[in-house]
Amino acid sequence: MVSDTTFDPHGVVPPLVTPLDEHGEVDRRSLERLLAFQLDAGVDGVFVGGSSGEIALLDTEQRRAVLEVTVGTVAGAVPVLAGAVDTGTRRVVEHARQAAALGADAVVVTAPFYVEPHPAEVVTHFRRVHAAVDVPVVAYDIPSAVRTRLTPDIVTELAESKAIVALKDSSGDLATFREVLRRTDLPALTGSEVLADTAMSLGAAGLVPGLGNVDPHGYVRLYRAARDGDFAAAKAEQDRLAALFRITTVADLRRIGFTAGALGSFKAALAWRGVIDHPATNAPLHPLDDAELSVIETILTEAGLGRVRDH
Amino acid sequence: MVSDTTFDPHGVVPPLVTPLDEHGEVDRRSLERLLAFQLDAGVDGVFVGGSSGEIALLDTEQRRAVLEVTVGTVAGAVPVLAGAVDTGTRRVVEHARQAAALGADAVVVTAPFYVEPHPAEVVTHFRRVHAAVDVPVVAYDIPSAVRTRLTPDIVTELAESKAIVALKDSSGDLATFREVLRRTDLPALTGSEVLADTAMSLGAAGLVPGLGNVDPHGYVRLYRAARDGDFAAAKAEQDRLAALFRITTVADLRRIGFTAGALGSFKAALAWRGVIDHPATNAPLHPLDDAELSVIETILTEAGLGRVRDH
Amino acid sequence: MVSDTTFDPHGVVPPLVTPLDEHGEVDRRSLERLLAFQLDAGVDGVFVGGSSGEIALLDTEQRRAVLEVTVGTVAGAVPVLAGAVDTGTRRVVEHARQAAALGADAVVVTAPFYVEPHPAEVVTHFRRVHAAVDVPVVAYDIPSAVRTRLTPDIVTELAESKAIVALKDSSGDLATFREVLRRTDLPALTGSEVLADTAMSLGAAGLVPGLGNVDPHGYVRLYRAARDGDFAAAKAEQDRLAALFRITTVADLRRIGFTAGALGSFKAALAWRGVIDHPATNAPLHPLDDAELSVIETILTEAGLGRVRDH
Amino acid sequence: MVSDTTFDPHGVVPPLVTPLDEHGEVDRRSLERLLAFQLDAGVDGVFVGGSSGEIALLDTEQRRAVLEVTVGTVAGAVPVLAGAVDTGTRRVVEHARQAAALGADAVVVTAPFYVEPHPAEVVTHFRRVHAAVDVPVVAYDIPSAVRTRLTPDIVTELAESKAIVALKDSSGDLATFREVLRRTDLPALTGSEVLADTAMSLGAAGLVPGLGNVDPHGYVRLYRAARDGDFAAAKAEQDRLAALFRITTVADLRRIGFTAGALGSFKAALAWRGVIDHPATNAPLHPLDDAELSVIETILTEAGLGRVRDH
Repeated sequence: MVSDTTFDPHGVVPPLVTPLDEHGEVDRRSLERLLAFQLDAGVDGVFVGGSSGEIALLDTEQRRAVLEVTVGTVAGAVPVLAGAVDTGTRRVVEHARQAAALGADAVVVTAPFYVEPHPAEVVTHFRRVHAAVDVPVVAYDIPSAVRTRLTPDIVTELAESKAIVALKDSSGDLATFREVLRRTDLPALTGSEVLADTAMSLGAAGLVPGLGNVDPHGYVRLYRAARDGDFAAAKAEQDRLAALFRITTVADLRRIGFTAGALGSFKAALAWRGVIDHPATNAPLHPLDDAELSVIETILTEAGLGRVRDH
Repeated sequence: MVSDTTFDPHGVVPPLVTPLDEHGEVDRRSLERLLAFQLDAGVDGVFVGGSSGEIALLDTEQRRAVLEVTVGTVAGAVPVLAGAVDTGTRRVVEHARQAAALGADAVVVTAPFYVEPHPAEVVTHFRRVHAAVDVPVVAYDIPSAVRTRLTPDIVTELAESKAIVALKDSSGDLATFREVLRRTDLPALTGSEVLADTAMSLGAAGLVPGLGNVDPHGYVRLYRAARDGDFAAAKAEQDRLAALFRITTVADLRRIGFTAGALGSFKAALAWRGVIDHPATNAPLHPLDDAELSVIETILTEAGLGRVRDH
Repeated sequence: MVSDTTFDPHGVVPPLVTPLDEHGEVDRRSLERLLAFQLDAGVDGVFVGGSSGEIALLDTEQRRAVLEVTVGTVAGAVPVLAGAVDTGTRRVVEHARQAAALGADAVVVTAPFYVEPHPAEVVTHFRRVHAAVDVPVVAYDIPSAVRTRLTPDIVTELAESKAIVALKDSSGDLATFREVLRRTDLPALTGSEVLADTAMSLGAAGLVPGLGNVDPHGYVRLYRAARDGDFAAAKAEQDRLAALFRITTVADLRRIGFTAGALGSFKAALAWRGVIDHPATNAPLHPLDDAELSVIETILTEAGLGRVRDH
Repeated sequence: MVSDTTFDPHGVVPPLVTPLDEHGEVDRRSLERLLAFQLDAGVDGVFVGGSSGEIALLDTEQRRAVLEVTVGTVAGAVPVLAGAVDTGTRRVVEHARQAAALGADAVVVTAPFYVEPHPAEVVTHFRRVHAAVDVPVVAYDIPSAVRTRLTPDIVTELAESKAIVALKDSSGDLATFREVLRRTDLPALTGSEVLADTAMSLGAAGLVPGLGNVDPHGYVRLYRAARDGDFAAAKAEQDRLAALFRITTVADLRRIGFTAGALGSFKAALAWRGVIDHPATNAPLHPLDDAELSVIETILTEAGLGRVRDH
């Protein structure tokens, strides 16, 4: 068990995609290569089973396979964070215990969803999960997926009671991110791909960018520059990465959904770079089409990215 | 296996609450009594693991216990529908297979959530679930929980391809309910507590009212009157039930959430009537307070309901 | 001044479109023909300056012209309702006084918008408007445009204090419509094009269907059949009108907005029928294209509608 | 006429509240004092008729009075921006022409609302307004009020065609604010009270903080520090102002609306400081109560603010 008081997430912790094979099962070889690619780039942790990891679409066996491969491949080199994302407290506890048993160093938990909770019930949710599991809990603010905000009041109360050890903020709302930093000493990581340097300048402990799947070297450079106070260099890297981030909006939303377009673009880019073998996403997401893939390749090339392994 | 072509849900099919004991586990004795109470009232089916059943808050063991008790107690007297409610296709398939293995006659499935699907991906979701399980699939339109609508176009396409055998409509939108009835011959059940007679007049096959937990006799009378064309009698019953439905809005939403207030009121009413032993809901929902319980008792009494068993 | 206590809106009261000429000004001749067409069909009132009348897009001179022509043409044959739609109380009072001065028999008022009011402030809004103007106030529940609901609690309080004389319900929510009918004796008119007969069966006083611009004869037949208890005839008419209502969804929403498509289809249909000369809508709405117009013509023909005047 | 090409808003441009007297009319003396207070603090412009100015609640005479007093009092010392906020193009043009006639140097215009426009129609809206008026147009992105976003694509297209001369961003979304700064050379002003220094570090041309009504000296110091590259000083000022900003959330939202609480707190603070005579807001907003006013006074005192004039 990792003690709550010593777990201190920081740096670049990419929310990894879940590579699939031609049968729709977890592609263990591709996941191993993705992990090696990330570690080689110098990431400070990995986060599996997040939104970018299609957590909402993975079944029990897929979640287990992802964690087994990840824990085994990482082998303690960096912390492994695992999403324990589900609608209610007892469901989350089940996921969290499973993740802990498989070797995760921390679990990442959202507000309840499907139901409509009161803020006091959101606090209860995190307290109960914390009390029931032996690994630290990272709070995950992602209103676009779960609708309910983790407000600064909620986060502050959870931080003070030690129910959570960190915040992953995917709200897009820097004002509340900053308020949390003002009111607590909780490590706060931003999920923003395009305001990473800004979040660092406000005191972020680290970055959890989905685009980090595709270009971990870029985010590691950005993080280290910002950490060392060189915000001009961080900004230059950020501008390049913001241009690269356009791959997530290439998909025609008249044909496939937003999630399919964004997560599909990460996988398509990784396949094109040779890191993973197949760009497939889980059902019911539909794939990108050839024209879209071609635009993504152009954006990758313009951002200076190339193949890291022959196909 | 129940053949898709012969499963024809109709009549009153209450979405049952999940009684809990003082330890938060499924209270099997109370569930048995609830089932007997419903069957005695003349319901035409039961639906477990729906929104009223706190499906979003039940863990694996609780879901299993609910289905075991239900299938065993009902013993074939009426069909047992089971919610297979989760965020993505493979997760839903897991739930649906488990429900089928435990004896459910059909599974009830929502649009994907947490993710943002395209309508075409919603269609894919239902097709895949249908192809993967051996029980009929009922589509569950509940945008308040999952945000995505099952539009008449989606429902029509799924009905024509036989991927679904019925619709449970909890959208509150009678215009689209009616359009589905115009465009398909799919059995459509309404989840509305207060427009049940109206839905019947538009051609609904049946009723799935959460309030049916508390007063199944009322909804059975309403259904039978409407089915037999006596809409004046149905309306009189509906008006009484609409007044009773106020129990769901007694809770102070400054203190607990909407879900806690609504589902808590069903359980509080059933406990007061002596059907179940404890009004407890799953974490993280907070309980109603004494003042609220007192108002609920007054409403129950005004609606002509009393204790069915001594405490 | 029309006394509050005697104004009793009922029957078919179409929310008229605002015909424009080739310069974008109110086309008085076309409006006169539209009014004659409606009166000839037997409508029980007309509503100008509603959502279908592009009230949000009309300037002061256009609003004045519409009311002048309408009051002059109708000449007391039926009541003239005028929208006094604006963001705040004093703005609404200005519109309402202007409408009263121009001869409107009642004004139709929404909840405040742009701002975020508390329900108690919504009540204050209507009370203040009522106190400041000499014509009766009809409450207009249209959350799709203003976001704030006129809940049954709000409507009941306003009805009891005589601040409003009627409700026009464009919420799409028959459950709350019915609750208002249960709790008050306020005349309630539905804005639904496709649940008109249902609303009548629940006790609606009348209909305010945008589609009534195109086919007033149909809605007059529907209303009279329902009023006289012949719901089978009302339903047959409703089914035909529901098919006709598809004209509002012909527009490609990748190209123009929802409002442009819906209001544009009413005007296109009226132009095709020969009632108005031009289908133009106000800026910034974009026009339907030829392919869309062609589909609309097909739908009109299928619904049995033809030209009422040579082009 | 101010030529589009020379109008270049920058610096601190507070969106002024509209002081009212005991009869609810514009309190010209208080407004003069507010303007003097702002000019004395060193603001670079003033913005009347914005959201903070209760534009949605002002009638024609109030809008006229505000502009007359403002243009007269400012007397060319700094530019006067005037909101031309309304639902549709022609309505906005009316307001804009009136503002120009009264001496405004620029008008501030939102996306259309009440209607649901397509992005292409939003572009048309601004182009038409620009073509119809003789003063420069500033685009105002405020989705919380109008729902429709001014996306970077829209803003870029309008900037390139010279239809707008600046952006006022009240979206709370720094990612898109930054994208606009990357893609255009349009002056962009942030409406954020709590990320003003951050916006400056990203390249903002200036600040339009509602809280600037209460503490213009603070925002002037913040702006000048950031402009001169002293971000540590800017941050210290920002932290103080963020604490002060809590006055906007003191109101009990169970009793009055969000708008009433926020705008009411600005006016209460200005009245307490002795700048304006009455804290009254326009109907239908309800006032703060004594307990809330007391909390606001404590926050003001803690932020180092005092009376600037004896009561």
